[in-house]
Amino acid sequence: MSPGGRRTGDSGTRSAVLAAAKRAFGEQGYGATSVRAVAREAGVDPSLVLHFFGSKDGLFEAALELPFDPSGLVPLLLAGGPVDQLGERVVRTFVGVWDAMPGQGPMLAMLRSAVSHADSADRLRALLLGVVFHPLARGAGAGDADADRRASLVASQVLGLAVARYVLHLEPLASSPADELVPLVAPTLQRYLTGDLEPPP
Amino acid sequence: MSPGGRRTGDSGTRSAVLAAAKRAFGEQGYGATSVRAVAREAGVDPSLVLHFFGSKDGLFEAALELPFDPSGLVPLLLAGGPVDQLGERVVRTFVGVWDAMPGQGPMLAMLRSAVSHADSADRLRALLLGVVFHPLARGAGAGDADADRRASLVASQVLGLAVARYVLHLEPLASSPADELVPLVAPTLQRYLTGDLEPPP
Repeated sequence: MSPGGRRTGDSGTRSAVLAAAKRAFGEQGYGATSVRAVAREAGVDPSLVLHFFGSKDGLFEAALELPFDPSGLVPLLLAGGPVDQLGERVVRTFVGVWDAMPGQGPMLAMLRSAVSHADSADRLRALLLGVVFHPLARGAGAGDADADRRASLVASQVLGLAVARYVLHLEPLASSPADELVPLVAPTLQRYLTGDLEPPP
Repeated sequence: MSPGGRRTGDSGTRSAVLAAAKRAFGEQGYGATSVRAVAREAGVDPSLVLHFFGSKDGLFEAALELPFDPSGLVPLLLAGGPVDQLGERVVRTFVGVWDAMPGQGPMLAMLRSAVSHADSADRLRALLLGVVFHPLARGAGAGDADADRRASLVASQVLGLAVARYVLHLEPLASSPADELVPLVAPTLQRYLTGDLEPPP
């Protein structure tokens, strides 16, 4: 801080904005939190929030403090091979990331928080749909409206795999290596992402 | 109680056994709880526990106090129509039961407890696999070893559907009527139950 009490320097201001964002997303949920309100709380101009984090989604991602960049995941998954093997890459990537987390700590913390607190559920929903699976479904060729349906289906199987493998330890799903899970689960994700589904009502 | 302090009458003894079972399953988990230990705790002979509840599984189910009889579900699902429409009946039945619970209370309570307490996870695992999905996969024609794999896959999608619909409220999955969910999710469950899967390693 400068002698007059105003924050100076990028890193101090960035930290103050991030702290305000974590409080706001945590207390009010994703939907009710605005860039403007976070800026006010941090005592900075909204343009500065956008300067540091790009958008409300960018701010949200930073506030989540994930061990990886979830928005970076989508281009990686899409570019990793043909679109008709996207389901396989999703299984490999998610199981790979989860298996690499000691005790699956961050993922289980988000899940625990989401089943008990509506605002944490808001955040996990925004992350899963807004940041990862909606853009992934769009990138795989779905239209904007259909992408929500495909994204929520993919999320349901990915979430269920996490709960089955790491929370309930359902065998043999819990101890199978990723190579054995891929042929079992990838066809489900592939159908949800790019397969023929009933037309929406 | 009789004047001498011994429990008399079936209903008093049954309640005492059930209370001991809830404590034991809750504190030690499903695996570490024995009929013998529950009987000792309740001050009765193990044969009396079996007289009232049939088996350890029966005791476990009674201790869960579900709003429906989960072991009754399997014959109903199997008898409800052709085996190649079993996936559809599973979606309809689970979504129907969940939708009918006010606020999905008991289901969410089990899920919340399971993500935070290992012994609750033990109970939910025993319920899902032991009582429902393993017998269902067997009834649909799977061999004993393969049934575990199929059952854990079915459980993963069913759990994920519950989390997506009732915890995270992923739209449009959250507000779609069961009729719209069936053609989306039933093919996944049908493949897991009776479809061609990679041979196990």
